[in-house]
Amino acid sequence: MDDDRSTSTCTEEPEAILHGGDLDEISRRYPDAPRPWIDLSTGINPVPYPVPQIPPAAWARLPARSEQHALLAAAAARYGVEAPAMIVAAPGTQALLQILPRLRPRATVAVLAPTYEEHALCWRRCGHRVALVDDVDALAVADVAVIVNPNNPTGRLLPRDTLVALAATLRRRDGLLIVDEAFTDLHPNASLVADLPPATIVLRSFGKVYGLAGVRLGFAISSEDIVRRLPEELGPWAISGPAIAIGTAALADDAWLAQTGARLTADCLRLDALLGSAGCNVVGGTPLFRLIDTANAPDIAERLARHGIHVRRFPAHPAWLRFGLPGDETSWQRLAQALGR
Amino acid sequence: MDDDRSTSTCTEEPEAILHGGDLDEISRRYPDAPRPWIDLSTGINPVPYPVPQIPPAAWARLPARSEQHALLAAAAARYGVEAPAMIVAAPGTQALLQILPRLRPRATVAVLAPTYEEHALCWRRCGHRVALVDDVDALAVADVAVIVNPNNPTGRLLPRDTLVALAATLRRRDGLLIVDEAFTDLHPNASLVADLPPATIVLRSFGKVYGLAGVRLGFAISSEDIVRRLPEELGPWAISGPAIAIGTAALADDAWLAQTGARLTADCLRLDALLGSAGCNVVGGTPLFRLIDTANAPDIAERLARHGIHVRRFPAHPAWLRFGLPGDETSWQRLAQALGR
Repeated sequence: MDDDRSTSTCTEEPEAILHGGDLDEISRRYPDAPRPWIDLSTGINPVPYPVPQIPPAAWARLPARSEQHALLAAAAARYGVEAPAMIVAAPGTQALLQILPRLRPRATVAVLAPTYEEHALCWRRCGHRVALVDDVDALAVADVAVIVNPNNPTGRLLPRDTLVALAATLRRRDGLLIVDEAFTDLHPNASLVADLPPATIVLRSFGKVYGLAGVRLGFAISSEDIVRRLPEELGPWAISGPAIAIGTAALADDAWLAQTGARLTADCLRLDALLGSAGCNVVGGTPLFRLIDTANAPDIAERLARHGIHVRRFPAHPAWLRFGLPGDETSWQRLAQALGR
Repeated sequence: MDDDRSTSTCTEEPEAILHGGDLDEISRRYPDAPRPWIDLSTGINPVPYPVPQIPPAAWARLPARSEQHALLAAAAARYGVEAPAMIVAAPGTQALLQILPRLRPRATVAVLAPTYEEHALCWRRCGHRVALVDDVDALAVADVAVIVNPNNPTGRLLPRDTLVALAATLRRRDGLLIVDEAFTDLHPNASLVADLPPATIVLRSFGKVYGLAGVRLGFAISSEDIVRRLPEELGPWAISGPAIAIGTAALADDAWLAQTGARLTADCLRLDALLGSAGCNVVGGTPLFRLIDTANAPDIAERLARHGIHVRRFPAHPAWLRFGLPGDETSWQRLAQALGR
């Protein structure tokens, strides 16, 4: 398949995707809203891992191979990767989404939808035929199947067995399963990493659960023959020195992650209760965000925006709103007030 | 040309390139050398721009569009770019080298050699036909011509007029000129940016002159139709929050750059004198490195390594050694001593 180089100058016209996490536009649209804005439009932990002192050399020098290996070792231990050669780091999971479509010549790609839209966009942009499907069985007939698990924004969590069976089916047809585990950190039993099926690529995000999205760090975990090809696509020194330093420290800090998991779980219960008492039906989520489905979602988003609170809307699903977790008591109070509670 | 998608799964087997800047291997090979190692194997300013306080949000949040625009505005002003839409930022110039080969279907590429080897490697890996040429005239018959100006490691500086004429010739054949100005910061008159010829891409590195290679930041400057295609290849949030914050501050700091230029110029004179007095013939360089050409280069590199000093060797040019600048008086003294001065 590698010999068919028909894929990918990857220069299709881009689609516009509305992402969360950027307050520029909404704060322009609501100039009179109280400041500071509370950004609940992402699924990023609002209480970040405390950034350690960055050694001056991490800024100044090109990252050394030994430092990159230390990062990979910490990530492998954290995620339960079987062998160091099965993991590669990138400057954010998005950087991996950009290059995965180059691993295959023109392929049929099925994405379990609705989900994070960059997956379909990236494959389509590189000339692949992409179908959005809503049924796991429909994934099995594609060359490449993409699943975000647990899903963003619905929180749908497919059981491990289902994914293992799908990977086996795909593999028989020389297919590939891609599982984006961006929100799996607090569902460790759901991860495919520890006993990875063949022909499977798992993506892990650093920035979400560690609350450090600006650091730009993500990982791909797969068989050695696949992992070996990714550093060539990324090029040398793809990860910044500070990202290596912070990632190496944070990924080894089990106590912080355990505390964070407990806090996020409690905060989700609090958010669900708050949303419920405001008449908003929580239909899904993960420990980093909650999804509501209600006919007056546009009104709620509008009301929150007037109160300086940004939540995520979905143009294709106007009844949905996704709420990230408030990061401090002031934000909780402002959210409760804005919701009329 | 964009319709011919024959380029580029970009998955050729990689070649091994020996880069400077990694002390891991040499410190293993010379375990008894005095510590700390002095790394003169790169062309990175050893006295970095002072890293400002990083706002917590730069680590925590996804970089906002307004922050990225501020970075581009600072870079455009610094480099003399005519319009904001003519510049794009990347997480290191290397990240741009990785994607430029995807702008064209299978092309003939001529690289003015010897030079930084990643240019040829990246184009070749994507299935392009790459020739290393030693004559500017030979560049004019290619689809894509690549010049590092001033050159690394020779310091050869082609006059602006030569490049403008070459760009015009290439353009008549729908060709493209790529000029890597990684070491042009202190040769502002040599830069093509301020009056950019059509069908030309200029690359600028942040990390070298600002001494912050670990930050990962670089820029491409070209006509709007070319620049428009690069963000799609890089994907959203390609640059880290701290890189945006540091770059925006540093690129606006004219006083620091002027001081740095004066210091580097003086240090080059000092290094040339030191090398000359040790019988080493300086045959080229830029304000960030000097190249010597001497039959006993291997012996000198060996002697320096035993003294804990790492310089850059060139397997294809065994008589060459490239010296970065020592960053403090102790390093100058150790270098003088190791050279027997």
